[in-house]
Amino acid sequence: MRPASELFPSFPSPDDKLHDHCGVFAVHGHPEAARLTYLGLYALQHRGQESAGLAISTGEELICHKGMGYVDQVLTQKLIKTLPGRSAIGHTRYSTAGDTAFINAQPLVVSCQKGQIALAHNGNLVNSAALRRELESRGDIFQTTGDSEVILHHFARAKHSGAPEALAEALDKVVGAYSLVVLLKDSVIGVRDPHGFRPLSLGQLDGAYVLASESCAFDLIHATFLRDVEPGEMVILNDRGVISLRFAPPNRLAQCIFEHVYFARPDSLVFGRSVHASREQLGRLLAREHPVQADLVVPVPDSGVPAAIGFAEESGIPFKIGLIRNHYVGRTFIEPSQAIRDFGVKLKLNPVRSLLEGRRIVLVDDSIVRGTTGRKIV
Amino acid sequence: MRPASELFPSFPSPDDKLHDHCGVFAVHGHPEAARLTYLGLYALQHRGQESAGLAISTGEELICHKGMGYVDQVLTQKLIKTLPGRSAIGHTRYSTAGDTAFINAQPLVVSCQKGQIALAHNGNLVNSAALRRELESRGDIFQTTGDSEVILHHFARAKHSGAPEALAEALDKVVGAYSLVVLLKDSVIGVRDPHGFRPLSLGQLDGAYVLASESCAFDLIHATFLRDVEPGEMVILNDRGVISLRFAPPNRLAQCIFEHVYFARPDSLVFGRSVHASREQLGRLLAREHPVQADLVVPVPDSGVPAAIGFAEESGIPFKIGLIRNHYVGRTFIEPSQAIRDFGVKLKLNPVRSLLEGRRIVLVDDSIVRGTTGRKIV
Amino acid sequence: MRPASELFPSFPSPDDKLHDHCGVFAVHGHPEAARLTYLGLYALQHRGQESAGLAISTGEELICHKGMGYVDQVLTQKLIKTLPGRSAIGHTRYSTAGDTAFINAQPLVVSCQKGQIALAHNGNLVNSAALRRELESRGDIFQTTGDSEVILHHFARAKHSGAPEALAEALDKVVGAYSLVVLLKDSVIGVRDPHGFRPLSLGQLDGAYVLASESCAFDLIHATFLRDVEPGEMVILNDRGVISLRFAPPNRLAQCIFEHVYFARPDSLVFGRSVHASREQLGRLLAREHPVQADLVVPVPDSGVPAAIGFAEESGIPFKIGLIRNHYVGRTFIEPSQAIRDFGVKLKLNPVRSLLEGRRIVLVDDSIVRGTTGRKIV
Amino acid sequence: MRPASELFPSFPSPDDKLHDHCGVFAVHGHPEAARLTYLGLYALQHRGQESAGLAISTGEELICHKGMGYVDQVLTQKLIKTLPGRSAIGHTRYSTAGDTAFINAQPLVVSCQKGQIALAHNGNLVNSAALRRELESRGDIFQTTGDSEVILHHFARAKHSGAPEALAEALDKVVGAYSLVVLLKDSVIGVRDPHGFRPLSLGQLDGAYVLASESCAFDLIHATFLRDVEPGEMVILNDRGVISLRFAPPNRLAQCIFEHVYFARPDSLVFGRSVHASREQLGRLLAREHPVQADLVVPVPDSGVPAAIGFAEESGIPFKIGLIRNHYVGRTFIEPSQAIRDFGVKLKLNPVRSLLEGRRIVLVDDSIVRGTTGRKIV
Repeated sequence: MRPASELFPSFPSPDDKLHDHCGVFAVHGHPEAARLTYLGLYALQHRGQESAGLAISTGEELICHKGMGYVDQVLTQKLIKTLPGRSAIGHTRYSTAGDTAFINAQPLVVSCQKGQIALAHNGNLVNSAALRRELESRGDIFQTTGDSEVILHHFARAKHSGAPEALAEALDKVVGAYSLVVLLKDSVIGVRDPHGFRPLSLGQLDGAYVLASESCAFDLIHATFLRDVEPGEMVILNDRGVISLRFAPPNRLAQCIFEHVYFARPDSLVFGRSVHASREQLGRLLAREHPVQADLVVPVPDSGVPAAIGFAEESGIPFKIGLIRNHYVGRTFIEPSQAIRDFGVKLKLNPVRSLLEGRRIVLVDDSIVRGTTGRKIV
Repeated sequence: MRPASELFPSFPSPDDKLHDHCGVFAVHGHPEAARLTYLGLYALQHRGQESAGLAISTGEELICHKGMGYVDQVLTQKLIKTLPGRSAIGHTRYSTAGDTAFINAQPLVVSCQKGQIALAHNGNLVNSAALRRELESRGDIFQTTGDSEVILHHFARAKHSGAPEALAEALDKVVGAYSLVVLLKDSVIGVRDPHGFRPLSLGQLDGAYVLASESCAFDLIHATFLRDVEPGEMVILNDRGVISLRFAPPNRLAQCIFEHVYFARPDSLVFGRSVHASREQLGRLLAREHPVQADLVVPVPDSGVPAAIGFAEESGIPFKIGLIRNHYVGRTFIEPSQAIRDFGVKLKLNPVRSLLEGRRIVLVDDSIVRGTTGRKIV
Repeated sequence: MRPASELFPSFPSPDDKLHDHCGVFAVHGHPEAARLTYLGLYALQHRGQESAGLAISTGEELICHKGMGYVDQVLTQKLIKTLPGRSAIGHTRYSTAGDTAFINAQPLVVSCQKGQIALAHNGNLVNSAALRRELESRGDIFQTTGDSEVILHHFARAKHSGAPEALAEALDKVVGAYSLVVLLKDSVIGVRDPHGFRPLSLGQLDGAYVLASESCAFDLIHATFLRDVEPGEMVILNDRGVISLRFAPPNRLAQCIFEHVYFARPDSLVFGRSVHASREQLGRLLAREHPVQADLVVPVPDSGVPAAIGFAEESGIPFKIGLIRNHYVGRTFIEPSQAIRDFGVKLKLNPVRSLLEGRRIVLVDDSIVRGTTGRKIV
Repeated sequence: MRPASELFPSFPSPDDKLHDHCGVFAVHGHPEAARLTYLGLYALQHRGQESAGLAISTGEELICHKGMGYVDQVLTQKLIKTLPGRSAIGHTRYSTAGDTAFINAQPLVVSCQKGQIALAHNGNLVNSAALRRELESRGDIFQTTGDSEVILHHFARAKHSGAPEALAEALDKVVGAYSLVVLLKDSVIGVRDPHGFRPLSLGQLDGAYVLASESCAFDLIHATFLRDVEPGEMVILNDRGVISLRFAPPNRLAQCIFEHVYFARPDSLVFGRSVHASREQLGRLLAREHPVQADLVVPVPDSGVPAAIGFAEESGIPFKIGLIRNHYVGRTFIEPSQAIRDFGVKLKLNPVRSLLEGRRIVLVDDSIVRGTTGRKIV
């Protein structure tokens, strides 16, 4: 068995903003484009709960709806029903603090001399501040505080008139992590940065093509997983099918390990590998590299379960569900004003006392083992 | 190991309304009575999501708030803050259909010659229809269609003037399953029927006493579990402490097995036994009584997990998380209008294809093994 | 011209609860009974904004919906669409403070040995407390704190088995002001107390009959006003038409003058007289009995307008709209925390400075002239 | 008396979009800037109910909140409380159809090489399409479909570095109607176009200065009306007081007559004249120029009242309130499905039958007399 460090080639977080993961989805060529995008975002909800949005093309113009909240709050049934068109892109964004939350919701939609364009971005650019200063010094105005808007400015003033070429020209300026879905009047473009930091997969449904951050979005809509978009590849979905362009040579591969550890759903294939299998394997490696004496292996539900099973299988220590999650934890909660402490955890997780009391526990959270020496609960 | 039939003495469902479980909570003698009741109901939310309500005593009068929906929707922070008093009862009710839903929300609060009384009831009476006809023939009016109101009518016209005695006199008329919490101006009463069909536990918090359907409500508020209320016992919580009365001889014990299998949270003690341990043991028994050849034991999350672990340990077949639950499944969902089928399950559960494909699976749901011969998914 | 004291025979407010006015509506024999009741209550919204509710008969049973808020908040389109039946009653209630607001929302619906009955009541009973004590001493329970519930108890235990006779028997016990609409499985009953304190009118729509507190409810649904229900009269609307019973001899007429002055809409006929004409006439009388020297007559909009016109015509002083009402005053308003005073009035009414400055003003509010000596605004 | 055509010098509607009126408000130098802006917009709610928004300056950066709906829906108490700063601008927008509604909500806030700038605009530019094409051809991107964004692009690339001068340079490019309020980090700018199409007034409150579309906004916050901003004038509010610049020579005056007839509140001063007095005078002129034989002059409430009073006074025909408005008309209404017609008007207005029947009526709506020959109602 290989050490954990060999499982993933490297982990160069572009700017230490680990938290900034998002989900993107796109479809071209399906009469229910808005509905499929809604469903795809629904399946990707775990990648971002702060804001959600989609843009569709009527064939004549782009229409965008976005807002703060969960996918099913922002994109209501009433709204989805009214949205025409055969192509669409969508975005769901992780929770970040700050007043700028709404203006940075995606997709971004602008019009320029090349027509209308909508963009949804998963990742972080490392040189966006410098690019922005440069553009502002030429007289450009910015309506968001995020890093994606610079791509649109460079697209608008690219020398190439064709959209894929103009987009490639714009991407030539930016450095960092980006998986993009782009909507034009008559096509959808998917892009993955040359390092392949963030995932993006291509699928097929009836005659249509779909793009998603994780394959679990394909499962929900009964689409077939075809392949990952390659690092440095641009796929253009239009009425003639899928065209692949290589806009940059693939760079040293630098997939984000946290996709497998934290972000992705275990039923997804990400970077061509089962997330579930990765987590279980990390548990096994942990048990091998840091063997401990304990009575029980207990996961922090739900994300810690696969790694805990791996740890238990490798170590031979029994696996038990020793923490119970409250399924009804809401977002507005009344804090006790006195006499009651320590609610943060209690509300969400409660130990099974009869199981844990007096026993040495290996507690596995995500796939990071927090208490390898057997931190005791209760 | 004993056969499953010996684990629980019997299972005489009073009237086949298995679905009609609720959660009750009560507190006497705490300055944050309303808040603790809110928290207790929150922990019991899994026992009922249709309606929620509480009644508090100011010392002078009872005030009741109830409504359709989840505990945190009905009992808002703003409301809880305004509710005074040192004693309270609460109720959360399982989802049932029908227009009578709201008028049957509990607690019921009435005034009569013995003063005001509030009642919250978990269980079903088998002779309520006959009692109701008899009361109506005497000129009484009924404002609910549920079975709990007959208890209040008999309480109001009981010969005894003391509330505990009058309540005992009323309970002498009714037959069936009932765990009750009752609020009077200056005390709280907890009652469990002579068969002990439904659970009710007594706990302590600072100087106050609390009652709850399951001990997980005590854990959340840091109360100490003292004991179960006994079948046929009435406990009176007032400023002098806890008084125990036996209003009926304990009958042949008839605990509802579904409390352990379905209703209760695994971290609760119910009927003096760990729910988690019961579920795991049921899985073990299953594996013993119905051994099968299979590659993997897979639970339907989350309720099937303990029994699946028991099955796996007993059978030696590896336990795997082969179905992933979508945590963001909401209550309003847009049905696809065409081209997409089979959403009911897909939305909530998605298989880990790489794990399940080509393997023989034992699928464990709740603690009922649905596919013992290895029903294959995918 | 007669003095104001002769315009209305007397004004014996039963218990000084002037504020407790409500609106009632009923219909029998129309396929859109719920919808018409919604519309009728909508037209009567000015008579009560605290709670609203209706009860319909399916022919087999009664179904009731009620809640806190405006008619269109409580009775949503979705709800109204689902309500079957050819007969219905409705109620809208004036804002009163207190925690008992919801439990006193009407219609009240109960079942008893005479079947189901729903009741909506406009008025106040003066002997309800005594009746309630007597009923409680016999073992009855009360679920509301209002005065209407005693009527239902007496109805349930009336010796007569026929509903109209049983209702008459119950009304024989009560003293005070009441205009009632009552719904039974197959009929609607309208009642006005022997003094005729509160209004109740009978109308016709296609083949159906309707009852309403004010005739403006008939206008909205294009029903024809037939006549007032007489003091001491009970009208029974069933499939054979309208039957009139006299359950009590008409007492000394005692119409509530505030119906004309405050409660009713000016476009209604109340007590057989145009509310608008009454208000204008009160303004004329005022000008005659209390002549003043002033430059302008200015109404407090909107209720003061008719009386101000009457005052202006009688006195010859010009009528001007000197106060402007803000149409967008909502119910949630942000109070200024400092530096800004006196918002209560400012928000709703703003003077036309150019008109009022330096002039002597007669300000007419409702039909009570508050500032006859020319109180100056600004 | 002068003919109506002399009352207002001219009425050149820039592009026939009469409907596109909005309300703007601004304040500089007050510790409750956000709250005052909320109140100012509240008083200007009649000028636009589609969307509302405000931007404040913390002194370091601008923060903007906007959304679809009424002022008190978009700008909640909770939000206003959290907004710091001593200067702010706000905007309320008239209802227009279309999917682009939200993206065109104002204020617009952008950052550029001159820092952050927020803009709120009342009016319409006639050359915005041409300016936009020109800017796009240079590589600029547009995020709204409205006409205000071109001002910001020209501001960003103006040669002058000072904000007032850069704004003047940008305004030099645009043609049309505009009253603007602009927020910068440390100042507020108010602008009125050289024709003075739209109103904008300057007021004072404690040491602070305020700008508003109508003086009724000053009344609500107890500010003192100082004067109108002049056509072609720019006023800069900063910590040193008010600075006036003339960025263009005043053009031929072209005030929009519809401000007085439709848009403005009668208690406002607009274009230095009382709106109420204008409406009454229009009624008088009408009576003079088009005398009719009639029994009563009846206004369509509320906007027709002043003109009807003027008509009545001039003609000697009695003024009567013959149509009653329902104050509780909401935005969601259940349409009757059959048997009931003609709701649109009925719901809002009901005639006082006893007054109108058999009489010849002059019906006055806004200040347009629609039925000069005595159209009869009923």
